[in-house]
Amino acid sequence: MNAIDRLVGLLTKLPGIGKKTAGRLAYFILDADPSYARQLAEELQSLHSHIRRCSVCGSFTETDPCTICTDPGRDQHILCVVERAQDVRVIEEGHEYRGRYHVLGGLIAPLDGIGPEKLAIGQLVNRIHRGGITEVILALNPTVEGDTTALYLHKILKETGVQVSRLASGLPVGGDLEYADRLTLSRSFRGRIPM
Amino acid sequence: MNAIDRLVGLLTKLPGIGKKTAGRLAYFILDADPSYARQLAEELQSLHSHIRRCSVCGSFTETDPCTICTDPGRDQHILCVVERAQDVRVIEEGHEYRGRYHVLGGLIAPLDGIGPEKLAIGQLVNRIHRGGITEVILALNPTVEGDTTALYLHKILKETGVQVSRLASGLPVGGDLEYADRLTLSRSFRGRIPM
Repeated sequence: MNAIDRLVGLLTKLPGIGKKTAGRLAYFILDADPSYARQLAEELQSLHSHIRRCSVCGSFTETDPCTICTDPGRDQHILCVVERAQDVRVIEEGHEYRGRYHVLGGLIAPLDGIGPEKLAIGQLVNRIHRGGITEVILALNPTVEGDTTALYLHKILKETGVQVSRLASGLPVGGDLEYADRLTLSRSFRGRIPM
Repeated sequence: MNAIDRLVGLLTKLPGIGKKTAGRLAYFILDADPSYARQLAEELQSLHSHIRRCSVCGSFTETDPCTICTDPGRDQHILCVVERAQDVRVIEEGHEYRGRYHVLGGLIAPLDGIGPEKLAIGQLVNRIHRGGITEVILALNPTVEGDTTALYLHKILKETGVQVSRLASGLPVGGDLEYADRLTLSRSFRGRIPM
């Protein structure tokens, strides 16, 4: 196996990258200035030594605790609960939310053997018990696993007295009724907002 | 800018990789075993020192001349002319063609300032003048630039006496007449094959 095949083989392990795309990427890198491959190699080489998990919220960070957990300008009373660290990035790019985060590290999925004990739910409860948090927003995907996890968290967190809400689910902005699936349409009816 | 942002920035330079996809790839690499990032880094680091251009056909190779140019089991009388080195890979994966290759390194595109002198056309003519080649198959994309280049090569190669052909253009296998564009349909009519 030559160097191109080895690179293509590694690239196909990336999500959403099939054999054809991996080939295109590999030839692009070959055709590009060698400094590009070198820079990419250096970033990959040092990635895991630069980035760790924040010990407070569980998101990826260069400093522990992360810059969001230590930013005094952010609302300390609100926690946004997400499935994965990359969800923090997505929400941050929206510039809508100004509170802090808690990364669960997954969703409850009994069929995959993922129970609540495998997620950072104990840490979430501990953070709330430490006080100061008045609202928890569940920003979990509107899927079966997301729904299950949201229900479970709601049950657990009810006892702590904090206000628990979940992101609205319904028609995407710019979407078309005609293309909405039945479940999305049903949710948008149930969650209808008085004008 | 932190390490994740730097990696995402580099990944968005790849063709077809936008900011969202680059983010997904970066977090996948972070979540994966660190050995994956290390292996990928090593392949990228050594890529340009392992791979060079074959001095005969112009495709990417670890040995010069490449394994296709030196394989005695391949037909030396037929040359397949392609635009880019990655086209060799695509055709090889089809396991249909058993001759040799010639990489032009581009297509004639006057609007982009690419004239015949910027392509490996002189080398192609030299290979043919050296003798032994009886047929040249032009495997160029059915685009304006591909058509222009094919016409130009046909004119040049006519004088050498070799037989010149071009890959058939028409409806893709499994395709539907309804979704074929006008030009493809027109080509499939002009290139119709008696049954």
